[in-house]
Amino acid sequence: MARARSARGVAAPLARIAAPLRILRLVLAYDGTAYAGWQIQPTAATVQGVLTAAARTLLGATTRVTGASRTDAGVHARRQVVSVRTEGTLPAAAVVRALNARLPPDIRVRAAAEAPPGFDARRAARAKRYAYLIDDGPVADPLLRRYAWHVPVRLDAARMRGALAALRGRHDFSAFCAAAGRGTTPVCDIGALHVLRRRERIAIVVSADRFLHHMVRNIVGSGVVVGRGARDPGWVGDVLASRDRRRAGPTAPAHGLTLLRVVY
Amino acid sequence: MARARSARGVAAPLARIAAPLRILRLVLAYDGTAYAGWQIQPTAATVQGVLTAAARTLLGATTRVTGASRTDAGVHARRQVVSVRTEGTLPAAAVVRALNARLPPDIRVRAAAEAPPGFDARRAARAKRYAYLIDDGPVADPLLRRYAWHVPVRLDAARMRGALAALRGRHDFSAFCAAAGRGTTPVCDIGALHVLRRRERIAIVVSADRFLHHMVRNIVGSGVVVGRGARDPGWVGDVLASRDRRRAGPTAPAHGLTLLRVVY
Repeated sequence: MARARSARGVAAPLARIAAPLRILRLVLAYDGTAYAGWQIQPTAATVQGVLTAAARTLLGATTRVTGASRTDAGVHARRQVVSVRTEGTLPAAAVVRALNARLPPDIRVRAAAEAPPGFDARRAARAKRYAYLIDDGPVADPLLRRYAWHVPVRLDAARMRGALAALRGRHDFSAFCAAAGRGTTPVCDIGALHVLRRRERIAIVVSADRFLHHMVRNIVGSGVVVGRGARDPGWVGDVLASRDRRRAGPTAPAHGLTLLRVVY
Repeated sequence: MARARSARGVAAPLARIAAPLRILRLVLAYDGTAYAGWQIQPTAATVQGVLTAAARTLLGATTRVTGASRTDAGVHARRQVVSVRTEGTLPAAAVVRALNARLPPDIRVRAAAEAPPGFDARRAARAKRYAYLIDDGPVADPLLRRYAWHVPVRLDAARMRGALAALRGRHDFSAFCAAAGRGTTPVCDIGALHVLRRRERIAIVVSADRFLHHMVRNIVGSGVVVGRGARDPGWVGDVLASRDRRRAGPTAPAHGLTLLRVVY
């Protein structure tokens, strides 16, 4: 026993170097209500923190998880993509059920597959799509209160659509960014932006190659300013051109925002 | 002061008799997750209990509320109708905002209006409509987990539609009733029954003049038995004809059920 332990003690560093690093690609859905966002924090429950803990019990203590989007506190996801770097050997086909058995019901792994060597869910992402849901009925719908921003004024969706059209394409989005990007460019390319009305709900769907901090929520906040009639539709284009955050509308609350998908 | 008090003391019983009893008609939406159902209970939070307490602070201690449907624990409502018998004089137009300020966010008053004398939301109802939501994706959708029953097997919606069609019309629904009706007839008239599929969701919508205890949940449980392929579609009609509760499928869980509307 003592000899075996000693041998293992010597072999371990070599084994660690030699262990084939494997990468899994997960698709994750979550209700962000109970979490302080995606990114791991020492003192708060986060999606990355809970997922990492579950993955480590299953795949070993050196397992690391990277999400395509670092969603804010309260933001939800339908198809977040996560890369898992691990020495664990559990087959991908068994990972979905095994992880879901260890995760709380507000976080679910929808799919797991082997990924090519070097796959990083964040760096490899080519585009992301978010939806922001607004409930503009006179009284908040209690069945949507965790997933929609209640604005108790009927909004003019056609006006909002006209205003936000100015944001499509490649622009400097500094005016819609919460903080100056540290070393990153404020230029993003919005490939699609739709404003959809159904009864007392408005969904604003935005796809872009990348997003700045609070960008969707600032776009939505500005859209609502126009939808209420407080500004003309042309105002959004003027705000964009100004590149001045102080000119945009207020930041819409986090709980209306859902990451829909990530494109590779 | 002493005289005034004494006079009021004598006048009060007469005043109570003479007070014009007023009836308000409320439309209520709620997320039933946190409640032990509609009906007031001494030791559990119920929707009727919470609404009664809020209404009494606003409209006086003799105020009583009656719901059209006594929804079970965990069942939700989009348009429950409630009659409020009160001596309070607050105008109906002010009642919505004042009640919502006193109610938790998972219960909302959508509308309030004066009702004709003698209006009773339960006795006056001519029909009700419920929707039952099933999530039959392989992994439960965490954003729907409070509002849909997760059945991790792809169901055959066309088969379910064919099976449940046998329930349309006027029948003895004893086979789908949790307990023998005490002094009430088991005959109900189902005016509409629809099975709608959209991606990984199935909604079963049922309208009837009246519903027996657990009737929609037993119908849904039986529909799922057929949708899984465990029984032929004709089985549901046989169960109905048997009037034997032991022959129907299991009772679907409460949290997938939502009262949609009440017809007068």
